[in-house]
Amino acid sequence: MRNIKLVLEYLGTNYHGFQKQPGLITIQSELERVFSLLLREKISVTAAGRTDAGVHARYQVVNFKTSSMMELLRFKWSANTLLPYDIVVTSAQDVDLSFNARWFAVAREYTYYLLNRSHASAFKAEWTYFYARPLDVKAMNKAVKYLRGMQDFEAFTSSLPRKHYIRNVYATECARIDDMIEVRIEANSFLHNMVRIIVGTLIQVGTGQRSPGDMRKILESKDRSLAGPTAPARGLVLTGVRYEA
Amino acid sequence: MRNIKLVLEYLGTNYHGFQKQPGLITIQSELERVFSLLLREKISVTAAGRTDAGVHARYQVVNFKTSSMMELLRFKWSANTLLPYDIVVTSAQDVDLSFNARWFAVAREYTYYLLNRSHASAFKAEWTYFYARPLDVKAMNKAVKYLRGMQDFEAFTSSLPRKHYIRNVYATECARIDDMIEVRIEANSFLHNMVRIIVGTLIQVGTGQRSPGDMRKILESKDRSLAGPTAPARGLVLTGVRYEA
Repeated sequence: MRNIKLVLEYLGTNYHGFQKQPGLITIQSELERVFSLLLREKISVTAAGRTDAGVHARYQVVNFKTSSMMELLRFKWSANTLLPYDIVVTSAQDVDLSFNARWFAVAREYTYYLLNRSHASAFKAEWTYFYARPLDVKAMNKAVKYLRGMQDFEAFTSSLPRKHYIRNVYATECARIDDMIEVRIEANSFLHNMVRIIVGTLIQVGTGQRSPGDMRKILESKDRSLAGPTAPARGLVLTGVRYEA
Repeated sequence: MRNIKLVLEYLGTNYHGFQKQPGLITIQSELERVFSLLLREKISVTAAGRTDAGVHARYQVVNFKTSSMMELLRFKWSANTLLPYDIVVTSAQDVDLSFNARWFAVAREYTYYLLNRSHASAFKAEWTYFYARPLDVKAMNKAVKYLRGMQDFEAFTSSLPRKHYIRNVYATECARIDDMIEVRIEANSFLHNMVRIIVGTLIQVGTGQRSPGDMRKILESKDRSLAGPTAPARGLVLTGVRYEA
């Protein structure tokens, strides 16, 4: 038996999210269909981050067990030939049988791409959210800093009721690179829609509707209705997964 | 009467090239359909570079005459709302009635994007040509320099017979930026498939099948059969148009 770890890149536009769902085409269903075909046995993959419908990944990690002896370079090449153009295996390696892409991950990083200018982009349309009104990136960067640390993010999620909403945010950054505003957040894990609601709230800070300090008040309230709207999935990209060295 | 100059960006993937053709959807047909609707009169556009089927533009210039008084910011915004997501008007200005986007252009620049690594890109799939074998970019850059100057490019075109095949190449560059090899060529104008045949030949230089100096021999032969194959349209992007100051 082998345990294979893959790094993937995909555009979520044409998929009903990562996770398998009966009758729907998802990233997981495509991976398992192609890998099972290629390795001639039923393959189940586990992912570090189960991205929602329409959310993309530039760096997703999955693993799966197989008894196939197929050489890794050949596996990667063949998988990429069989997979749709918008899902790409960027690297493959053998790992310890105990490795689990989801449970061993100590942090995930998401980046939200806001195209902030007078017109959308034809080349980046699929993975950017076009927002034409001017945004104050300094205020947004100040606001996002309030989210750092071990905190209760109940106000920033549309999760169903759960035991707790505590997450540890390790890093935040909001920066403009030419016309693109990149909101980057790294945390141990994320609640449902957490980044998208944070970005929806940051946009309100960027337009001046709210002050950066409102982030603290919203956090403390634990009230979803005080946060901003959920920003569209299209701008959200899983950009990193970290494991213990 | 007004003469309006636009800068456009588009992905050519879903279009039968720029130029209008009966019964086919082209960039020109989409522009004229939307502009005519918006300005309530029949609009005909003229483009600096008539890109082929599947070829993209990051900087295309067109102009058209209209009697409409519509304010330019409003025109740009409305046009972008009505145009498909893969065609974007990036700027609009009023110009002298004599201006013609095609005849006044003194140079066009095309860039060919070769993704040279072990796997394709999900994010850049539409506008890059994925080529996995290692390529010697230094040799390619040496080869492309032979094309500079006023020369006969009959060997590098699939044009129908014409009076002459002389073009003036102002600048060439072949450089690697991470995994992407960018082949940039600026000329007064281009023959049909000229950049794609040049790139097909450069790839043969990059793999060592040919030496850089072969470019001169191919040029001198004026024989299309001595040049390399036509590289796919997907990697080709019109990246600039220059006018006299």
